[in-house]
Amino acid sequence: MANLDLYLIRHGLAAERGTFAEDGDRPLTEAGQQKTQQVAKHLRALDLKFNFLLTSPLVRAHQTAAILVAAGLAPQLSIVDYLAPGGNLSDWLTWLRTVDVSCVALVGHEPDLSTWAERLLWGESHGVLTLKKAGVIGLSLPGDRDPLGRSTLFWLTPPRFLLE
Amino acid sequence: MANLDLYLIRHGLAAERGTFAEDGDRPLTEAGQQKTQQVAKHLRALDLKFNFLLTSPLVRAHQTAAILVAAGLAPQLSIVDYLAPGGNLSDWLTWLRTVDVSCVALVGHEPDLSTWAERLLWGESHGVLTLKKAGVIGLSLPGDRDPLGRSTLFWLTPPRFLLE
Repeated sequence: MANLDLYLIRHGLAAERGTFAEDGDRPLTEAGQQKTQQVAKHLRALDLKFNFLLTSPLVRAHQTAAILVAAGLAPQLSIVDYLAPGGNLSDWLTWLRTVDVSCVALVGHEPDLSTWAERLLWGESHGVLTLKKAGVIGLSLPGDRDPLGRSTLFWLTPPRFLLE
Repeated sequence: MANLDLYLIRHGLAAERGTFAEDGDRPLTEAGQQKTQQVAKHLRALDLKFNFLLTSPLVRAHQTAAILVAAGLAPQLSIVDYLAPGGNLSDWLTWLRTVDVSCVALVGHEPDLSTWAERLLWGESHGVLTLKKAGVIGLSLPGDRDPLGRSTLFWLTPPRFLLE
């Protein structure tokens, strides 16, 4: 199989903790929606197109993924439990081995996404990658689908560095 | 001292190897100059301003640094031998401990720059960071000036992801 470009995208700015009875119900704020739309527009201007867009089921992530689909970045979104906070990278790797794709995006939470990125790059995580809300990490994974400690980093950006 | 933002910038596209008797004399191509100017313009639009801009003495790096100065990103450039290919990170760390600055840029070569970045992040290098010509790495170093294995990565971008 070909190498895989993997984009890890953190959900946008959401309502503060404690403002909803269930943490998973917190939606994006209006500013969070706008910033996420700006990021989506920039990604489209770069001609990115994801074969699959997988998202955490939490409202703030699901809304972020919906904005990316609306911008034309992916044909549809799929909600997967293992992208909820505390989810397991090995669950995603199991899925990865069932598909033949070249470009996948995951929408989720911190510190999970940057931890997954470090495990793909170095095999373990030291907490050295800073992923802001609506920020993006771009990784290249080897085609043999055995990516732990064998991937490379070609992009990491906060949303404020993505000009319109 | 305050944390230090460190930008590692690879020289732009240069004339091919073997076209000059001395490798260090190879200049940027016209396309390399244009792409580097575009990157410089983007960095200025982000309001970046370097207290110090240090560069490798090789022509392709020196020219890249001059483009960054012309764009208003730094008051001047300083040529330092330890940014030539194969230079020693500890020489730069020695310099760093003599200045009180918050934002520094280094213009140099691969694989040195990405190797230095990995040593600052993880203490050692596994060759997992992809730094393209005229690409940028952004690191945050702790204020105590003991940054090896204790820094964080907030930015890594190829020039093609920096839209005008």
